[in-house]
Amino acid sequence: MPTPTALPLSSVRLTGGVLGERVERVGTVTLLRQWEALNDRIPGAPPSHAVRNLRIAAGDETGDFDGLWFQDSDVAKWLEAACYRARFASDPILTSAMDELVDLYERAQEDDGYLHTYTQLTPGAKRWENLRDYHELYCFGHFIEAAVAHYDTTGSPRLLAVATKLANLLVKTFGAGADQIRAYPGHPELELALVKLARASGDSRYRDLADFFVRERGRSPHYFVTEAERRQEKTPPVWSYYDDQAYWQAHVPVTEQTEPRGHAVRAMYLYCAMADLARETGATDLRESCERLWREMVAKHLYVIGGVGADGPGGENFSEPYDLPDDRSYAETCAAIGLMMWARRMLDLSLDAQYADVMELALYNNVLAGLSQDACHYFYVNPLAVNPGETRRRYDCKMVKTQRVPWFGCACCPPNVARLLSSLGEYAVSRTETGLALHLFAPMHLEHAGWKLRVETEYPWQESIKITVEAAPKGEAELAIRAARADWKRAGASLGEAVDGYVRVSREWQPGDIITADIPLPIERVRAHPRVTSAAGRIALARGPVIYAVEEADHGPGLPSFGVARETELTPTWEPDAWGGVVTIAGEAMRETPPEHLYQTTANAGRETVPLRAIPYAWWGNHGEGEMRVWLRDYQS
Amino acid sequence: MPTPTALPLSSVRLTGGVLGERVERVGTVTLLRQWEALNDRIPGAPPSHAVRNLRIAAGDETGDFDGLWFQDSDVAKWLEAACYRARFASDPILTSAMDELVDLYERAQEDDGYLHTYTQLTPGAKRWENLRDYHELYCFGHFIEAAVAHYDTTGSPRLLAVATKLANLLVKTFGAGADQIRAYPGHPELELALVKLARASGDSRYRDLADFFVRERGRSPHYFVTEAERRQEKTPPVWSYYDDQAYWQAHVPVTEQTEPRGHAVRAMYLYCAMADLARETGATDLRESCERLWREMVAKHLYVIGGVGADGPGGENFSEPYDLPDDRSYAETCAAIGLMMWARRMLDLSLDAQYADVMELALYNNVLAGLSQDACHYFYVNPLAVNPGETRRRYDCKMVKTQRVPWFGCACCPPNVARLLSSLGEYAVSRTETGLALHLFAPMHLEHAGWKLRVETEYPWQESIKITVEAAPKGEAELAIRAARADWKRAGASLGEAVDGYVRVSREWQPGDIITADIPLPIERVRAHPRVTSAAGRIALARGPVIYAVEEADHGPGLPSFGVARETELTPTWEPDAWGGVVTIAGEAMRETPPEHLYQTTANAGRETVPLRAIPYAWWGNHGEGEMRVWLRDYQS
Repeated sequence: MPTPTALPLSSVRLTGGVLGERVERVGTVTLLRQWEALNDRIPGAPPSHAVRNLRIAAGDETGDFDGLWFQDSDVAKWLEAACYRARFASDPILTSAMDELVDLYERAQEDDGYLHTYTQLTPGAKRWENLRDYHELYCFGHFIEAAVAHYDTTGSPRLLAVATKLANLLVKTFGAGADQIRAYPGHPELELALVKLARASGDSRYRDLADFFVRERGRSPHYFVTEAERRQEKTPPVWSYYDDQAYWQAHVPVTEQTEPRGHAVRAMYLYCAMADLARETGATDLRESCERLWREMVAKHLYVIGGVGADGPGGENFSEPYDLPDDRSYAETCAAIGLMMWARRMLDLSLDAQYADVMELALYNNVLAGLSQDACHYFYVNPLAVNPGETRRRYDCKMVKTQRVPWFGCACCPPNVARLLSSLGEYAVSRTETGLALHLFAPMHLEHAGWKLRVETEYPWQESIKITVEAAPKGEAELAIRAARADWKRAGASLGEAVDGYVRVSREWQPGDIITADIPLPIERVRAHPRVTSAAGRIALARGPVIYAVEEADHGPGLPSFGVARETELTPTWEPDAWGGVVTIAGEAMRETPPEHLYQTTANAGRETVPLRAIPYAWWGNHGEGEMRVWLRDYQS
Repeated sequence: MPTPTALPLSSVRLTGGVLGERVERVGTVTLLRQWEALNDRIPGAPPSHAVRNLRIAAGDETGDFDGLWFQDSDVAKWLEAACYRARFASDPILTSAMDELVDLYERAQEDDGYLHTYTQLTPGAKRWENLRDYHELYCFGHFIEAAVAHYDTTGSPRLLAVATKLANLLVKTFGAGADQIRAYPGHPELELALVKLARASGDSRYRDLADFFVRERGRSPHYFVTEAERRQEKTPPVWSYYDDQAYWQAHVPVTEQTEPRGHAVRAMYLYCAMADLARETGATDLRESCERLWREMVAKHLYVIGGVGADGPGGENFSEPYDLPDDRSYAETCAAIGLMMWARRMLDLSLDAQYADVMELALYNNVLAGLSQDACHYFYVNPLAVNPGETRRRYDCKMVKTQRVPWFGCACCPPNVARLLSSLGEYAVSRTETGLALHLFAPMHLEHAGWKLRVETEYPWQESIKITVEAAPKGEAELAIRAARADWKRAGASLGEAVDGYVRVSREWQPGDIITADIPLPIERVRAHPRVTSAAGRIALARGPVIYAVEEADHGPGLPSFGVARETELTPTWEPDAWGGVVTIAGEAMRETPPEHLYQTTANAGRETVPLRAIPYAWWGNHGEGEMRVWLRDYQS
């Protein structure tokens, strides 16, 4: 088995800056508040019932299961995040909650290893009865990820034992054997978790089961069709209507899939497992499939904010190529998290900055947007244009919230964003066969295998990056740094050309070595492919990885015609008092003067100029409800 | 009771041209084909079961009711259309069908006058149980309209007798009396029908009941709320979710309604009744309410193709002001028909061309689009932009068809467009207190009350109009002609300025008098209010009342960036071989060259020029499936 490329999480300590501060707030605010939500103690928020389901299954309480089929996963994702947090700081409430959960899981688990409160508590529900919809395998996956994180953090074998007992049941139950179920999960997630468990336990049967699930998917006869016939299902669920088996990425075997299709989060988690297995087993067919799907996604399906999923009400799906509406974008927070997870795994296959660039884009825009500045309100759907009146009135925008909310009935995103941010170090740096690779730029301290590095920067607001080698392993070692269009230098001398977007320097590093760069952060006007209707004749403003938005709070209502003239000079502006400090974009904006009638045949619409204040997209919705837009009119004067 | 302003339909004979030919085709093709559809004899089309329901209710067949609550109305609208056709031409199949229906209605009617096959045939269904949803009053309305048309056409009292027996039951059942139901129809339609019946029968009780229904609507306590409580309804129907009581225009009394809201067809039919009653009773509050709602609709809710209804999947609703998406427009054919009906009634209140202009816009674009060139395929929803792949894939476009279809499960539109076109003479001309008013320009012959007029024109393709007075009543009489920006002349002398958009000339007319005009038909670039997002930075091409569209069939795929430069000269082009002859628009069009990546930061997108062929919107979809767009990019060079 190849060396895992992720560093132990505690090797990377983020020390402030945009990312570090957000991670810290997740630890001090978000996780505590989410524990309250999972225990139904937030007035006004939709009750979760998730911990209560576990208590009932453990026999501590009586009552009925409540919530969705995948309610268990909310607790597991939260526990995983809490374990990551515990590597850096101890909090008595979190510690006690973690212990309580371990105890509950142990007692809720059935004798043969099964552990899914929906199935256990719902009268008439049967195991493996509806793998397509019931999410038991998905919940197992999240539980296993939590158990591995708990073991890595605490060293206690208790939760890992529950997970291996469960995984052993799966190994026995699923497979190509005559007495086994030849199926795969309705929502991929278990596959990548089994790879993690194989690494943590050293038991390759779990990886083999992941490989079975991934390769069985999409084969004919389609398991979900057979299963539905067995259940005598009359009508398929509405959310799968338009993509049929592709909703579950089960239309053809994964090695034959050529474009991302179906439910976006499912797709991301599946592609993660495919990349994991490509790396673990050296399977080139899975690797090539990943590379092909990645190319198609980036070329035709990626929102400018680094998000995926364009068709909302029917199922959070990938749509047709270039179909990226802005007011009905799904761009689910979980899908952008899944995109980061996949990108990070693609970097394990090839140290190529195309993956890190998209990972960074998703992080600074779609993912950070999922969490409010007060760190306890969330977006599930991330629109690129909002008009609150229309959004509330229109049926086809019913999934879009105009403001972040304290919790959801379907609460997959809040613990997922906590989990992602609490493990952000794993996305910032990885180890390579010959040294270290730095993907994200943030103030941090890194300590691993003889290395001690300090990164100082105010990126993405400012251009300069300084990396100090405080200690280095003996002998020659390689530092690979994402170039990000910069000329990286050591002692005034360029470190040379980047290869695949990474500057790679092998040498005997000395304490006191300093590497610097100025990453160019010009304000850029981004244009979309002409088949993207929502962006036709429009531009988005970007600076480095940060995409900008304009809000009604700064400009008044009527943003559809709001734009910038081509020759207008735009200025990055440090605003220290805005949400603890962000760089906004100032300049002169333009909008059409409202005419008297709905339609007119005048040659030119009247225009007026107003001061522009574009704010980073992820910060929108933090000062009152109102219109918001990413794509701005591209005025010619 | 004031004089009806509609001429007897047979006084106005359309004699060719775009409208006359379409009307003729409805008589020779559409009505016959629809009779087949209503009798479930079109292979592949959704079965109607509508005539069969009547046969079962009449005792001629056994079986269960099938179809929607309002299935009866499809037959009634068809019968009404057939009666209109019978004024101009006799067809043995239509005559026999009309006779058969009269016979069926007589025998299907219950002893006390009730006649609604859904309620009569559905086990457990009770009369007046769910006035909000079950459409029995709506079906009564369409039946009464058909009966009045049958009486006017045939002089036979048989069907009118069924209608008055039914109406007498309603007069007894509904009202403010202690033993009466104080309610109103869930779908307005009965109200305007009762006004017609009052005129036909001379019995003012029917008009009074219409007045009661209209004025009771929206009063507190809300009848539909009370009724739902009585039914112990758990969840309201999805389609009403976003507008609550406004879906039914029952949120406040009609005289307090300030903006068009809710289901667009319901709104149009209700406003028709309000205008009818304003005229019949002189009620200024209803008239003012109509005028206010009209102003708001035209200022903020009217599609450029003369359609209404912007929020599709949730209920065919009016949305927020300026929310007029092009790919998810509802713009139902029935709503545009209702808009014409309302506009025509507003002309009865004020001879003001603002109403005739919108009526003409709706006719030439949204209404004509509802019927294919082969006269037997239909659009229900009329989109302003189609991309077949996206339209089929997207859940929020699920109500949009990319091609006209032979019939619908919910088949309100096909017989409605047949009914509207078969009675088009009533929209072309009306009588005033002092003479005649001409609203629409088409080749026609008019004979009424001493008048004989011949109109010769190839409008809207050509500009010239010639009206020959072949006979005139004795003494002074007024001809009012919609000015349509033309300088109308008699014997070379201008007839003077228009008042409210009509040139009105009172004189002693002589046989041989000739009135002429050239109605200016420049190609115009129409811009929408800047808050209409789908039209931002775009233009629509118009020539007179005709709005144009571009199609993939003429330009290849990739229409989102398709547009015209500001300085490009556009030329109207008579194409005699295109669908029997239409004027298309030729010139040079522009589109962006597809770049390599999804996003780029180049200053200018590459552009290429291609020949433009814009076709009249109503003709789109008649040469293969493909992309279509009305709003084109407004390029500056």
